[in-house]
Amino acid sequence: RKHTIAVIPGDGIGKEVMPEGMRVLERAAALFGFEIEQKWHDFACCDYYARHGRMMPENWKEEIGRPDAIFFGAVGWPDTVPDHVSLWGSLLQFRREYDQYVNLRPVRLMPGVPCPLAGREPGDIDFWVVRENTEGEYSSVGGIMFPNTEREVVIQETVMTRIGVDRVLRYAFDLAQKRERKHLTSATKSNGIAITMPYWDQRVEAIGAEYPDVTHDKYHIDILTAQFVLNPDRFDVVVGSNLFGDILSDLGPACTGTIGVAPSGNINPEGTHPSLFEPVHGSAPDIAGQGIANPVGQIWSAAMMLEHLGEAEAAAAIMRAVEQVLATPSARTRDLKGAAGTEDCGKAIAEALG
Amino acid sequence: RKHTIAVIPGDGIGKEVMPEGMRVLERAAALFGFEIEQKWHDFACCDYYARHGRMMPENWKEEIGRPDAIFFGAVGWPDTVPDHVSLWGSLLQFRREYDQYVNLRPVRLMPGVPCPLAGREPGDIDFWVVRENTEGEYSSVGGIMFPNTEREVVIQETVMTRIGVDRVLRYAFDLAQKRERKHLTSATKSNGIAITMPYWDQRVEAIGAEYPDVTHDKYHIDILTAQFVLNPDRFDVVVGSNLFGDILSDLGPACTGTIGVAPSGNINPEGTHPSLFEPVHGSAPDIAGQGIANPVGQIWSAAMMLEHLGEAEAAAAIMRAVEQVLATPSARTRDLKGAAGTEDCGKAIAEALG
Ligand SMILES: CC(C)[C@H](C(=O)O)[C@@H](O)C(=O)O
Ligand SMILES: CC(C)[C@H](C(=O)O)[C@@H](O)C(=O)O
Repeated sequence: RKHTIAVIPGDGIGKEVMPEGMRVLERAAALFGFEIEQKWHDFACCDYYARHGRMMPENWKEEIGRPDAIFFGAVGWPDTVPDHVSLWGSLLQFRREYDQYVNLRPVRLMPGVPCPLAGREPGDIDFWVVRENTEGEYSSVGGIMFPNTEREVVIQETVMTRIGVDRVLRYAFDLAQKRERKHLTSATKSNGIAITMPYWDQRVEAIGAEYPDVTHDKYHIDILTAQFVLNPDRFDVVVGSNLFGDILSDLGPACTGTIGVAPSGNINPEGTHPSLFEPVHGSAPDIAGQGIANPVGQIWSAAMMLEHLGEAEAAAAIMRAVEQVLATPSARTRDLKGAAGTEDCGKAIAEALG
Repeated sequence: RKHTIAVIPGDGIGKEVMPEGMRVLERAAALFGFEIEQKWHDFACCDYYARHGRMMPENWKEEIGRPDAIFFGAVGWPDTVPDHVSLWGSLLQFRREYDQYVNLRPVRLMPGVPCPLAGREPGDIDFWVVRENTEGEYSSVGGIMFPNTEREVVIQETVMTRIGVDRVLRYAFDLAQKRERKHLTSATKSNGIAITMPYWDQRVEAIGAEYPDVTHDKYHIDILTAQFVLNPDRFDVVVGSNLFGDILSDLGPACTGTIGVAPSGNINPEGTHPSLFEPVHGSAPDIAGQGIANPVGQIWSAAMMLEHLGEAEAAAAIMRAVEQVLATPSARTRDLKGAAGTEDCGKAIAEALG
């Protein structure tokens, strides 16, 4: 089996954690008998942008070709390129142009990662956040009337489509159906946001009817964020619109202390386009260049990518190796009160793989 | 000094906690030498709505008259009236028609209230959330095209106005200026929501320039919710749009364990219209009628109302009495692991007042 991977390390610590992600990926390939064909791209603020004034060439799709997946580090260098330029010019562009309509993130309490919530142990919290990743609140439709006057009015549209809502709900219900508890929680705000959110609720009911073996409930987003803190053990699969999913998939990892190690998948489930896997953390200019960044988010993303590519065994093995290394104080990086550098930690995980 | 108060206990536990709020208010009046003139209204699902099929009479403004403030319990009884009907028919209507454009909520770690975050002590967390309360994401402008077909498109507008944004920002900067740390944090999402949110950021800069002695920063809403869990001691005044403020002002009290005891003010700062004070909790049908509801949210709301009415001394005395009773296990209600009923707890606070 051969998998072709487009590798985009990006900026800052993205460049430091990517080699560790690739190290573990290659090790897994050797152990589990598949091949990785890789092509690296310098689409980043401090590389391509610095030379050409844009994040990617105009023919970026040709450049990238038809890989089986994209392995992404982190993009962004606010001192030289404003965030909305670097993000709409790369990450958000991939999500839309490759129709990666599912953003998937685990919320899991891991050994060795201090939890900010009182009295919670590894095993207590283990759920997925499924986020709609292409439409909804993230639109660029709207504008300003009477600009620069006291009468200034600014309007922005939230746009939901039946196609867009139903497909991400089906993905979430499918995922819940495969899990033990078979429970889906929908994030809404239909008591305040009176048009799109009641529509979202209505589609949850319609799609839910196709899954009689999956139970579902809904919470308004305000009280749902409160429940993430108060009762995180209550959740199994949580599905939300682009904005609500964005919030919940940062808050969830924060509640388990894993913002620095969590992975994410930007998935095109049909496989018409490549899916993209990236750590949740950003390029972290404040610690870049010191070799101290935690590579676990990149490595956990490699596991999600392998799972997506059908290499479930290799993915599970990587996760076992990650948990083993996280449980070993000396192998952890500084953010987890260890002393290991980025490379030490990556090597430890590769070795733990077998 | 005389203050006229419109009293709307509402539904469920609203009816049980309101008498305790009034008990403490009257006690404070006797002790601090002012008069309370009260007029009660039965605008609730299980009262007025049950008889007339609407939450309030058409001439509700005349009925209410020109009170100095509205003291509100909790409205909602989903078994008989859908939430969006009861809320848009009362609470949300007051906010708009009385131009209560500031929603103000304290986030404070209190003695006797178990905190879900590890290692935090009373005194560690003490900040305000200021929420825009009339416009933004809570609009009813928009609609559905191609309904009930595969092509269904649902659009909802977020509307921000210069007037609406600037006045709530000024309120928040004013509040920060009066505090020791003089720091304001703005909730944004300008990296993803590309029209209204960059506008919000721009107005924060413009208004911030009028307050050279107040420092300010901004966080995207996703990472800001994470920061509420990870570094809640970092905040002083946090300002957000209607939706972001709604989320943060539930999440903040959840992080301090105070969702059941937190108060809120819906404020018309100019005093052109009455302001409304209510506990953060709802009508809680699950525990209604048992006399076990915690009255502290209603009583703390009374303190906020008195502060607003210029009775700062009485307000401070109520807060001291609340803290004293919360620190006394036997005087606490069941939700805080005590055995006191609603009335016992209210009486204890009234007595502690002096
Ligand atoms: C009940 C609901 C409409 C309301 C809101 O979202 O404003 C509530 O959550 C609040 O914060 O007062
Ligand atoms: C950087 C930003 C535009 C992005 C988003 O909001 O989608 C990020 O927060 C994420 O969750 O991947």
